[in-house]
Amino acid sequence: MKIAVDAFGGDNAPQAVVEGVVQSLQKEKGFEVILFGDEGSIEAELKKYEYDKSRIQIVHAPDVVGYDEAPTVAVKRKKESSLVKALEALRDKNADAFVSGGSTGAVLAGATLIVRRLKGVKRPALAPLLPTRHGSYVLLIDCGANVDSKPSYLQQFAVMADAYMREVGDVKKPRIGLINNGAEAEKGNELTKAAYQLLKKTPVHFTGNCEARDILSGEYDAVVCDGFIGNVVLKYTEGLAFTLMGMIKDELMADTFSKLGAALSKNAFMRVKKKMDYTEYGGAPLLGIDGCVIKAHGSSNGKAFTAAILQAKRFYEAGVNAAIARAVEALPSIED
Amino acid sequence: MKIAVDAFGGDNAPQAVVEGVVQSLQKEKGFEVILFGDEGSIEAELKKYEYDKSRIQIVHAPDVVGYDEAPTVAVKRKKESSLVKALEALRDKNADAFVSGGSTGAVLAGATLIVRRLKGVKRPALAPLLPTRHGSYVLLIDCGANVDSKPSYLQQFAVMADAYMREVGDVKKPRIGLINNGAEAEKGNELTKAAYQLLKKTPVHFTGNCEARDILSGEYDAVVCDGFIGNVVLKYTEGLAFTLMGMIKDELMADTFSKLGAALSKNAFMRVKKKMDYTEYGGAPLLGIDGCVIKAHGSSNGKAFTAAILQAKRFYEAGVNAAIARAVEALPSIED
Repeated sequence: MKIAVDAFGGDNAPQAVVEGVVQSLQKEKGFEVILFGDEGSIEAELKKYEYDKSRIQIVHAPDVVGYDEAPTVAVKRKKESSLVKALEALRDKNADAFVSGGSTGAVLAGATLIVRRLKGVKRPALAPLLPTRHGSYVLLIDCGANVDSKPSYLQQFAVMADAYMREVGDVKKPRIGLINNGAEAEKGNELTKAAYQLLKKTPVHFTGNCEARDILSGEYDAVVCDGFIGNVVLKYTEGLAFTLMGMIKDELMADTFSKLGAALSKNAFMRVKKKMDYTEYGGAPLLGIDGCVIKAHGSSNGKAFTAAILQAKRFYEAGVNAAIARAVEALPSIED
Repeated sequence: MKIAVDAFGGDNAPQAVVEGVVQSLQKEKGFEVILFGDEGSIEAELKKYEYDKSRIQIVHAPDVVGYDEAPTVAVKRKKESSLVKALEALRDKNADAFVSGGSTGAVLAGATLIVRRLKGVKRPALAPLLPTRHGSYVLLIDCGANVDSKPSYLQQFAVMADAYMREVGDVKKPRIGLINNGAEAEKGNELTKAAYQLLKKTPVHFTGNCEARDILSGEYDAVVCDGFIGNVVLKYTEGLAFTLMGMIKDELMADTFSKLGAALSKNAFMRVKKKMDYTEYGGAPLLGIDGCVIKAHGSSNGKAFTAAILQAKRFYEAGVNAAIARAVEALPSIED
């Protein structure tokens, strides 16, 4: 299989991307990488490493889609960008999967406009994984691709999450919750009340409403929500973790005993950091696209790109998209 | 001034409530408390303390509104409940402020149906304070009283938050943000896009969109959102803090050096806990009601009730409601 990698997507591109690619090839066999971007720069980076030359191909793409560009406009105009050319390779089946750490908006727009949706899918959804206390992960879907969702979108998110967590997450019977403002069935806003009724009838293991305090409890393998909510949850995770770790740091430095204690507990804090670290568990799949699209975090380092590339490989090999297509087709048609 | 206190609201009622009342009277002068609830039980609790008997009055209310009751039904039927009788005292101006740790739904329904809204206020909003890293607080409004909000509700939330943070929070020019899925003005769902345009024209210090990662940054004195979003943020704060502190605890206990370090840093962790502890900063004001209503956390202990009672006193003395009424009246009338 072949993975198309946008060498110029992300804050640390192309260095971190090329580093991630080389490491991923060292870690696993059975796939090749096509790097899209300025050929000279990519070659210069590759020179730093020893690697199997037969497994890397470069496709020259001189242009870059920036973070500050209007996504749809950029995707339509920048035909020679690494993002667009890599997505075209996915569309044309010259690649089986795609990874980019570029602008989320541009990846979403590009995947939708160039690769297009799986048949029957109303809205593709971005679905990052969050770590729970006990080492499992919960898929948060949708995380910003769609705002003002309809109930039927949330139903489709549930079947897409179910397929992904079964096939890639190795969860036999994923427990799927609906993020809501109360645990009781009758709680919610117009969207979640209607979505609850649909999810009850959907062939997934729907375990009911999930209050936000329980998202990370480990009781759910996936939680479904409108993209505005998912965006708030994802970004607040970052903000609150930063605030809390900052408070702890401030207080550990505030007295001599604590300072000494902090020095002694250094390894414990490193392990917590590792558990919370997105670089450990790859990027976010964009589900519902007719191809395997992984959006890596914009600030990904080499290790994060390695994880994202290997995640793209699993995404493809597990046959998730065929499972999604079947599941979506089996849903009753709803116009909402 | 007189504060009506629901002695039977909260998981630890009436013990914690009575303890909080006695402590609040010891801490500050210039107010009296009317305790509503079963007279015998309240008297039995009061016997445990030394206090100025002239400052506490008991009004017998034999019934209790439970957490599992449908709020509106309970408030309408349970005329002899501590919640209803205390709110009636507020309505009839026999009390100047009200505190309850009872069911949020019942406090909202009771305040709206019995005390009623301030003139011109479309929707009362629940507005808890969250601690930021550097010791300041941010008011989160609305936090669950309203779902499916209209843009004009969010505009009113902003002026109510402005009045509260100026008068009670002692912030000269509260910085008010709109929780949104991007920092740019054009970002958002239908609601936040329209609300942004209204807030730009509102006579408060609107500093623009606030991404969820920045809610606790200390850059905002209040953040405005639909109640569904506020509910998710509030409950996720609890869930994520619990998860993260749990991860840290697990790792600190996982090796000998860290265990020793944790013992040495004990005071630092106590200080972090204190910073994050809602019992330190009282309850959540319900803004937009024609009376000063404070909803204490359901699991409040004595200290939390003390803080909530003193917060109710400041809420009344600061004249927040008159400021809200003036500010709301000055807004252009919007039908949305």
